[in-house]
Amino acid sequence: LGIKIETIGFDADDTLWLNETLYLQAKQDLITLLSPYQEPELIESYLDKTELSNIRVYGYGIKSFTLSMIETALELSHGTAGADEIQQVISFARRMLSSDVQLLEGVQETLARLAIEYDLMMITKGDLFEQERKVERSGLAKYFKYIEYVGEKTPHRYQTLFVKYALDPAGFLMVGNSLRSDILPVISIGGRAVYIPYQHTWSHETDVGTELDGRKFYQIENISQLPDLLHDLSGRG
Amino acid sequence: LGIKIETIGFDADDTLWLNETLYLQAKQDLITLLSPYQEPELIESYLDKTELSNIRVYGYGIKSFTLSMIETALELSHGTAGADEIQQVISFARRMLSSDVQLLEGVQETLARLAIEYDLMMITKGDLFEQERKVERSGLAKYFKYIEYVGEKTPHRYQTLFVKYALDPAGFLMVGNSLRSDILPVISIGGRAVYIPYQHTWSHETDVGTELDGRKFYQIENISQLPDLLHDLSGRG
Repeated sequence: LGIKIETIGFDADDTLWLNETLYLQAKQDLITLLSPYQEPELIESYLDKTELSNIRVYGYGIKSFTLSMIETALELSHGTAGADEIQQVISFARRMLSSDVQLLEGVQETLARLAIEYDLMMITKGDLFEQERKVERSGLAKYFKYIEYVGEKTPHRYQTLFVKYALDPAGFLMVGNSLRSDILPVISIGGRAVYIPYQHTWSHETDVGTELDGRKFYQIENISQLPDLLHDLSGRG
Repeated sequence: LGIKIETIGFDADDTLWLNETLYLQAKQDLITLLSPYQEPELIESYLDKTELSNIRVYGYGIKSFTLSMIETALELSHGTAGADEIQQVISFARRMLSSDVQLLEGVQETLARLAIEYDLMMITKGDLFEQERKVERSGLAKYFKYIEYVGEKTPHRYQTLFVKYALDPAGFLMVGNSLRSDILPVISIGGRAVYIPYQHTWSHETDVGTELDGRKFYQIENISQLPDLLHDLSGRG
C-alpha cells in the first residue's frame, strides 16, 4: 500500500482494441479455402507453426501473417493451389488491413479519466505502419503523453524507455493482456504490472512456462476496474 | 555563415548503407522468373505500379514489396503462375531479409568523427522489424544519441521529433538521399538539409515536382565531405 504510480503504460492490441479476432477470422477463411486439400486441424496446426517460425524472419503483423498463409497454402496443396487461391489469401490480408478499429469495452472512459491524473504511455509491438494506422483510427492518441512502437517487448526495451524519459521503474505500471510481453519483462526490471486476460490471446503471448512463478502482479477482468485498483494501491480512501 | 549546428539527422537506407540494390536485384530476378509470360519492360512497369499503389495499403519494406511481387506474378501470368513460381518469389524475400548490411563508403569514419562534436540522430522510415535488424547488423548504433523509426517522413513527423527532444530547428541538419523524405520536409519547417544523391534512389523518393524551387539546401557527392561542409557552415577556419 501507499504505492505512488506516475506513469501508466498500456499495451494496445487486445488491451485497448480488438486484434486477435481479425487473425482468427482470416485463419478460419484459410481453413475453408484449403478444405479441398487438407483436414481443418492439419491446416490450423501447419499455419500456427509457420507463423511462429516466420516471426524471426518477417516480424509481427498482418503482412508477415499473410506470407505465412501463402506458404501454408502452397505447402498443404502440394503445389496445386493456384493463382485464384493465392489471390484470395491476399484479399484476406487487405480486409484485415482496412478493418475498423473496435475499442474494447470501457477503454475510452477509463483512459479519459486516468489521463487527468497520470502520464499515459502506449507501448505497442508489431508492424509500425499497421500500428500507426490503428492508433490514428482509434482516436485515442489524445489521451497519451507518449506513444512508443517497439519491435519486441523485452526487459531491455522497457529499460530503454525508462532511461529515455527519465522514469522511475517503481512509479511505472504496465497494463496488458500478454504475460510474455506486458507483465513479465516489466516486473523483472522493477516495474509493476496489471494483467487483463483476453479470451482470444495468442498462445505465443501466454506461454511463459514457469518464469512467472512467485512474481507479483495484479489481475483484473476489465480495464474499467483499473481506476479502483490504482486507488487501492495508492492507499487512499 | 556562422551557422551553429547542434544535431545532425541521418537517413539510413542508401545514405548509410546499401538498400535499393537489394530491391533492384529482386526485381531483376522476378523479370527473369516471369519472362515466359511477359516482356521485361511490362513486368517492370507493372511491378513499379503495384508497389507504389501498395504503399498505401501495406506500407514500406520488404514484406510489402514481396506481396507486390506475388500480385505481379499472379496478374501477369494470367493466373498460370503456379506454386513453384510463388515459392521462388518468397525465396527472393528471404534472401533480401537475411542479407548483410553493406555500409556505404566513408560512413564509419565520418560518423565516428562527427559523433564527437555533434548529437547524431538516425531517422529511418519503413518496416520497424527490418530497420531494427539493419541497425543492429550495421554496428553503427554506438554513434547515435537518438535512433528514430518513423512511418513516413512528413514535416509534421520531424516537428514531433523537434518537440520531443526540445531541438531548435535552426540547429538541426538532416542528411539523406531522398529529396521527398529527407530534404524537403526538413527545410519546410526551418531546418537545414544536405542532399547526397545516390545512383539507385527509387524514383518515388526523387519525384517532388516543383516543390523544391527556390528552396535552399546543400549537396555533396559523398558523406566524407560532410565534416568540411559543417566546418564551412560554422564559419570557422
